[in-house]
Amino acid sequence: MDLVQDADWSKGAAYIDGQVMPVAEAKIPITDWGYRRSDVTYDVVGVYYGSFFRLDEHIARFRRSMQELRMEPKESDAELRQILIDLVRRTGLREAYVAMDCLRGRPPRGVPFHPAFAKPYIAAFAIPWVWLFTEEQQARGVHAIIAKTPRIAPESVDPTVKNFHWGDLTKALFEAEEAGAETAFLLDQAGFLTEGPGYNCFAVIDGTVVSPPRGALLGQTRDSVYELCQELGIPHDIRPISKAELEDADEIFMSTTAGGIMPVSRLGTRILGNDRPGPISATLRETFWKKREQGWHATPVNYDKAPA
Amino acid sequence: MDLVQDADWSKGAAYIDGQVMPVAEAKIPITDWGYRRSDVTYDVVGVYYGSFFRLDEHIARFRRSMQELRMEPKESDAELRQILIDLVRRTGLREAYVAMDCLRGRPPRGVPFHPAFAKPYIAAFAIPWVWLFTEEQQARGVHAIIAKTPRIAPESVDPTVKNFHWGDLTKALFEAEEAGAETAFLLDQAGFLTEGPGYNCFAVIDGTVVSPPRGALLGQTRDSVYELCQELGIPHDIRPISKAELEDADEIFMSTTAGGIMPVSRLGTRILGNDRPGPISATLRETFWKKREQGWHATPVNYDKAPA
Ligand SMILES: Cc1ncc(COP(=O)(O)O)c(C=O)c1O
Ligand SMILES: Cc1ncc(COP(=O)(O)O)c(C=O)c1O
Repeated sequence: MDLVQDADWSKGAAYIDGQVMPVAEAKIPITDWGYRRSDVTYDVVGVYYGSFFRLDEHIARFRRSMQELRMEPKESDAELRQILIDLVRRTGLREAYVAMDCLRGRPPRGVPFHPAFAKPYIAAFAIPWVWLFTEEQQARGVHAIIAKTPRIAPESVDPTVKNFHWGDLTKALFEAEEAGAETAFLLDQAGFLTEGPGYNCFAVIDGTVVSPPRGALLGQTRDSVYELCQELGIPHDIRPISKAELEDADEIFMSTTAGGIMPVSRLGTRILGNDRPGPISATLRETFWKKREQGWHATPVNYDKAPA
Repeated sequence: MDLVQDADWSKGAAYIDGQVMPVAEAKIPITDWGYRRSDVTYDVVGVYYGSFFRLDEHIARFRRSMQELRMEPKESDAELRQILIDLVRRTGLREAYVAMDCLRGRPPRGVPFHPAFAKPYIAAFAIPWVWLFTEEQQARGVHAIIAKTPRIAPESVDPTVKNFHWGDLTKALFEAEEAGAETAFLLDQAGFLTEGPGYNCFAVIDGTVVSPPRGALLGQTRDSVYELCQELGIPHDIRPISKAELEDADEIFMSTTAGGIMPVSRLGTRILGNDRPGPISATLRETFWKKREQGWHATPVNYDKAPA
């Protein structure tokens, strides 16, 4: 326990299958199928202003993902909740990026070489907050392209089960770099918008905030966008968005835990509005953070209480 | 260095970015994009009868994969070759499964959150030989199904760049388990054969050994199958194979480093031949191992020389 007490927890704390450690010591065996077959699901929940955002919804989504992959780790939802809170408490971080993974493990020698024989387990960590795009990029609007690489089809890998199959997303990020842009939106093979590397996508079309019904993660921040639209009286809809519609949209923005609501000011060679975030995107972003500060969907962390 | 000398190397030896360690200590940081975004490529080469098989071809394929993903680790091909040989020598294993991975790493804080800013590095290990299917399964023929899950499309993730995007393959393995089978072949979205979890697929149709031209890894063992066909005067062809053709094939077999040539005796409800490996599959398997024993494409390991 001395090791645990002497560690620099402010850089991050981790939990792996019952053990707590500084994040720098949190490692995955090179032979684990969670790594070697990317046979793993995960979730990420944010802490800002000293509170978790939608903690129970993230845990519920994570549980559903594990069930879809037939993974049953030893921790209950209530235990997982406590583990995450304790990790953040231990770091003392008021703004944290909190990840929970469930890895397949690996079947022992002597049984069939099949995932059904492995023992899935939880790994989780809390580190200092991560912005997918800097505050400066968000304020001036992010520069995006539409990638040529199509998103992995939902029939092959279900995007609503949060996963590390980022090959298509990574390829799209290199396409963006080559085009002098910062990120890339992926279409499905029929040419409809899906999502981007780490976020959901929205278009504002004729005054309505629209996002795709399939081919993307059911983002918690996306749910929050719809909640805000409801509250602010902004029309919103969930329907397929073609490439042409996207290219023609009045505004475009992204949503994710690691950034909230992030406006886009360029799409390929097109400059949206005045090369600044559009009015609806800007209002949503501002309202999002104001409400966060006021305790919206918040689970406050009690930093004074020593971790269990 | 004492640690290194006292370790039990027979369970496996690993190399990570310049460091050598027992395989049990070889671990990937939980925040590395090689794990968190499966932003990694790899290769696996086999050692049997004390010799590597097609070592330089595996390294060449690995190099091409790294280049496709824009990864340039510090090791040259010659250095990598020596690292792999030294790992096997250290374990003393005459039969070994030898993996080499190149991981993306992770961009440091303060630069854009983009893979181009990360520093890719090599991780490799040698462990006791792994049979994808037991020798008993191979002798009686493996029981396969055709999966409903389609293989990830090559446009999204290139299957010729060996990767850990196994979500579709893992789902197919669970389909197989539910059907009482041992493995599953995946079709592409147009209904043509691609590959299976860890192997290439072959059908024998009207006396010709056939395998698909796309949608699969360009397997080294597959190349070896064609070489054997050439030598034995067995007609062979590379062309698309429809689901109907596969279901109607005279023989079916699989090829992989971790198993060689492995006959299939059942496909779904269909029993092939006499529920035993077909004659062409059996001949290829037998010839494969006989030639391996005789030093075919072999790089012998000098176990007497102490590792560098
Ligand atoms: C691919 C992808 N889509 C969408 C999202 C946004 O989901 P959420 O708002 O729940 O963070 C993420 C978040 O990491 C993601 O990785
Ligand atoms: C998906 C897949 N296809 C095919 C193969 C066979 O390739 P090789 O014969 O080079 O081992 C493998 C080997 O691991 C594989 O993982």
